[in-house]
Amino acid sequence: MSQEGLLRPGIAQLRVLDMEESVRHYVEYIGLELVGTGDDGRVYLRGYDEFHRHSVVLREADEAGIDFFAFKADNQKSVDRFRKNLEAYGLEVRDIPAGEQPGVGARISFTVPTGHDIQIFAEMELSDSPNAPETKNPYIWNVEPKGMRAQRMDHCLLYGPDINEVEKIFTECLDFQTPERVETPDGTLGIWMTVSNKAHDIAFVNHPEPGKLHHLAFFLENWSDVGHAADIMTRYDISRDVGPTRHGITRGQTIYFFDPSGNRNEVFAGGYTYYKDQPPRVWDHNNVGRGIFYYERQLNEAFLSVVT
Amino acid sequence: MSQEGLLRPGIAQLRVLDMEESVRHYVEYIGLELVGTGDDGRVYLRGYDEFHRHSVVLREADEAGIDFFAFKADNQKSVDRFRKNLEAYGLEVRDIPAGEQPGVGARISFTVPTGHDIQIFAEMELSDSPNAPETKNPYIWNVEPKGMRAQRMDHCLLYGPDINEVEKIFTECLDFQTPERVETPDGTLGIWMTVSNKAHDIAFVNHPEPGKLHHLAFFLENWSDVGHAADIMTRYDISRDVGPTRHGITRGQTIYFFDPSGNRNEVFAGGYTYYKDQPPRVWDHNNVGRGIFYYERQLNEAFLSVVT
Amino acid sequence: MSQEGLLRPGIAQLRVLDMEESVRHYVEYIGLELVGTGDDGRVYLRGYDEFHRHSVVLREADEAGIDFFAFKADNQKSVDRFRKNLEAYGLEVRDIPAGEQPGVGARISFTVPTGHDIQIFAEMELSDSPNAPETKNPYIWNVEPKGMRAQRMDHCLLYGPDINEVEKIFTECLDFQTPERVETPDGTLGIWMTVSNKAHDIAFVNHPEPGKLHHLAFFLENWSDVGHAADIMTRYDISRDVGPTRHGITRGQTIYFFDPSGNRNEVFAGGYTYYKDQPPRVWDHNNVGRGIFYYERQLNEAFLSVVT
Amino acid sequence: MSQEGLLRPGIAQLRVLDMEESVRHYVEYIGLELVGTGDDGRVYLRGYDEFHRHSVVLREADEAGIDFFAFKADNQKSVDRFRKNLEAYGLEVRDIPAGEQPGVGARISFTVPTGHDIQIFAEMELSDSPNAPETKNPYIWNVEPKGMRAQRMDHCLLYGPDINEVEKIFTECLDFQTPERVETPDGTLGIWMTVSNKAHDIAFVNHPEPGKLHHLAFFLENWSDVGHAADIMTRYDISRDVGPTRHGITRGQTIYFFDPSGNRNEVFAGGYTYYKDQPPRVWDHNNVGRGIFYYERQLNEAFLSVVT
Repeated sequence: MSQEGLLRPGIAQLRVLDMEESVRHYVEYIGLELVGTGDDGRVYLRGYDEFHRHSVVLREADEAGIDFFAFKADNQKSVDRFRKNLEAYGLEVRDIPAGEQPGVGARISFTVPTGHDIQIFAEMELSDSPNAPETKNPYIWNVEPKGMRAQRMDHCLLYGPDINEVEKIFTECLDFQTPERVETPDGTLGIWMTVSNKAHDIAFVNHPEPGKLHHLAFFLENWSDVGHAADIMTRYDISRDVGPTRHGITRGQTIYFFDPSGNRNEVFAGGYTYYKDQPPRVWDHNNVGRGIFYYERQLNEAFLSVVT
Repeated sequence: MSQEGLLRPGIAQLRVLDMEESVRHYVEYIGLELVGTGDDGRVYLRGYDEFHRHSVVLREADEAGIDFFAFKADNQKSVDRFRKNLEAYGLEVRDIPAGEQPGVGARISFTVPTGHDIQIFAEMELSDSPNAPETKNPYIWNVEPKGMRAQRMDHCLLYGPDINEVEKIFTECLDFQTPERVETPDGTLGIWMTVSNKAHDIAFVNHPEPGKLHHLAFFLENWSDVGHAADIMTRYDISRDVGPTRHGITRGQTIYFFDPSGNRNEVFAGGYTYYKDQPPRVWDHNNVGRGIFYYERQLNEAFLSVVT
Repeated sequence: MSQEGLLRPGIAQLRVLDMEESVRHYVEYIGLELVGTGDDGRVYLRGYDEFHRHSVVLREADEAGIDFFAFKADNQKSVDRFRKNLEAYGLEVRDIPAGEQPGVGARISFTVPTGHDIQIFAEMELSDSPNAPETKNPYIWNVEPKGMRAQRMDHCLLYGPDINEVEKIFTECLDFQTPERVETPDGTLGIWMTVSNKAHDIAFVNHPEPGKLHHLAFFLENWSDVGHAADIMTRYDISRDVGPTRHGITRGQTIYFFDPSGNRNEVFAGGYTYYKDQPPRVWDHNNVGRGIFYYERQLNEAFLSVVT
Repeated sequence: MSQEGLLRPGIAQLRVLDMEESVRHYVEYIGLELVGTGDDGRVYLRGYDEFHRHSVVLREADEAGIDFFAFKADNQKSVDRFRKNLEAYGLEVRDIPAGEQPGVGARISFTVPTGHDIQIFAEMELSDSPNAPETKNPYIWNVEPKGMRAQRMDHCLLYGPDINEVEKIFTECLDFQTPERVETPDGTLGIWMTVSNKAHDIAFVNHPEPGKLHHLAFFLENWSDVGHAADIMTRYDISRDVGPTRHGITRGQTIYFFDPSGNRNEVFAGGYTYYKDQPPRVWDHNNVGRGIFYYERQLNEAFLSVVT
């Protein structure tokens, strides 16, 4: 048993305005590997420490944002169980055939009340890149990490309405936990949810407009690499939102910045190890500033308003 | 579902020769909190980032070593399931009543072929220390970590015979995975096993004498704290085995050292995030040196011979 | 010869509004050692890695700010030479007798056009604290650093008018170099000056009001300790100005924050090694934001306006 | 005045057995820039944070070792003064004409009792590489550092007889200080000398055979980069001697390793800031192990015997 059902974030598909400068951003600066370009022009990327074929997909479009966020399940039986749970809950579940993305098996897709397309799949080819993690007498890395040295796509924060309903769906249908939450007199402001020992695999913040992306996050080795990432941002004039700083929520050491299309990215390190016998951590409206930005102890204007 | 069954290492009970100098070692130097002393003289300790009452128990005895290593399960139903699995496998399962350690519920206990007493329990009181992690608008820490700044008891490496049989038991009865292993022409030298997203929760190395402890490990925040821990060791003349170095296996950045009774300790940071869809990593006898000590690229004499 | 004349910043005397909370700030939080209190109530402090008796003096007063900033010279002959230089330049040089501060020899004092009292002295007793650096088989530290782990008082940034004149005095009379400067269409905005291999020992920014303190800085071991200092600031609700961030000028990794009286402090790490055959580094008004705050790439409001 | 006379180590010329694999080692792995190759086949290299044309010269030869170690002086007047001092001391001073190395002015050369050729020069061209430090609104770095990210050639440790005599020459003729020394019942084992605020610019250990190189050292940004350098060494199978560890002497965090010709290299970070009013630090024969290798607390066999 151990970890059953969903394993982790598996694919984030982003909309970008200009593919060439987006690829430069994600590959040269963030340090993802360019896996390949599909027939329809979508570009596939992976972090150097990810075993599977890809984790980030870029699609050129007129408007920035996130097309969908997909979790990888341990097997098809789990996917079938999740479908049953979701349909019993009253959600419509759509099918995406194997091969819609190269190397990826069949996916199920459903729209949650915040307006986001969430997907689940069980099969993806392992990477055959010389840059992929090794399994026979492995080196820490085979090809030296570059740019911000992003190890993996890690999580996203999504903005939309009805997050209490979303939490119910993720908890009851998909077995998520909610290690941290922000509760204000006006209701739940945000929820940080996990299916693993990570402090969060996905998060939602309450927002009137549906389907919005706050940020897509990449994991770095440590606080030194967070500082190095900030050096990279200034050198290449990448638009920075906030950081280096730390989150009180999840404790991650972090920088928020923007890709050339205006999609917010995060690079972060650290964060505690979560177990489901830990009591939930709750933040109130007087302390949410410190919860989000532990050092600044207040939100910046962009946090609640700038999304794609 | 998500993480089902066993959650993590919950209690390690060590035998120490002199309680006073042992407490100084684990509290002043490693930085654990002294929770209290039981009526029978056993001393209870916890890492500053652990929610529960204690995780390390010291028992004064004539010989150093480990009494038992206990895993915390998510609930009693899981414990009952594991008992059934273990008995079906042919192992004798013993009962330890609630309260045998203060604040700890009923445990089951069984001896694996390597000669070690492994235990499982579902209930332990949360810590009521001002030093414990907070849940209302939590600070990163409430009381500044001291000494080596150990966050938690993390795992142990045990030495004994028949580790293939032990792997079978841990896999089939307790839902463990084996992310890494060392295979030599003479058979399996070592296995690193997990029930979580950590690279290892317990490990075994093949050894003729049963019931031996190679090391008990504590988790540090990062490589800087590993360096700081080395500064502490020299300042207080703590016997060091090897490090600061890195493991190829698990990638942890590490120091091995000894408590005053000769029990080996480890402080380490880092290590990859494991998912069960990752292919297993296998080391052969030509590379095991690099697997254990990534920088030295060879075993030291003590690694295979010095145990308690 | 090698380093001749001035060696380094030796004493900064600050005015504080409340001694008790100031001592808590500098001792408990920044981690300086409380050396003692003088008969007149002044409090003497030192960083754990400073050989001499004290480096920071706190004086209770009705208004925050800096009384004087004193450099330590290699010997009395150098002090005499500097006096001659200063008087030849046309400055009045005052005498402060040995013993005006415990353990400190005679000082000379003069007021520069920015309105600051600058002093020079050659003699100070070595620290006899068990906390002081050792000279026989020394440990890295004898007593574990605490709080923000400040190693030493490092430099100050002073605000006042006529900084070009001040640069002339420091260069011609006291042998300073100016590794970095900010030149705007309205004239020189700031100068960063050194008598050593440090990127700066003192800095001045042009400001209409004379005699102002922008910040007094303390040196930390590395970027990890900068992050730890930020953890400390939030835990103890210390007023933070900006950071963790980095300076383009000097490259220091830094946090600005305030003592309870409103005096700005800095903790920083890193910074390049300066040699006088390095060409000067010049920033223009389009880039000064990046020069001061390398990651933010713009000044915050407080940088040019909040001083004591 | 401030730093007068010698500024810093300026050029180290090493003998290597195979130029191609040596260039790979120093450029690809250590991360120096390949400046160019001279008509006589010598290869010129510089660290990314060095302003001047080159600092390391490789010469193909039948035997590894160091040809000479040269210090850069502030001006020709200082060079003339040093020549006078050296000749008055009784040493023969040789002339090396400007242009013997591209971009380098006239040098003086003399042999010290340990058998090493020490040189002094005042003029070297500034680097015109896009990789060189900038002076107009400079970035921290212009081209991202690679490999071990060596910032600069920093110092060397030389082995030979009569080090007390050498100390006298360096002190009396060249204005060096000796921040640290090892004194044994058999005499002075080693001296660490500086002309700057660095803990050492050159060091000597007593050794019967003259003219030997123990190691040439490169400066890294911090302990994280020391760990990264160790990752690089294992990945590319570079022969490692010891580390990551720390020196008690100078406090540097360090790794010793070997170039393909057997010349020992060091990468290190940290080290205290030296001022000449600091009392000297002295180690005795009971503690020299901890002085050299602070964590191991004993010398390894290679330290006193393996030189080139």
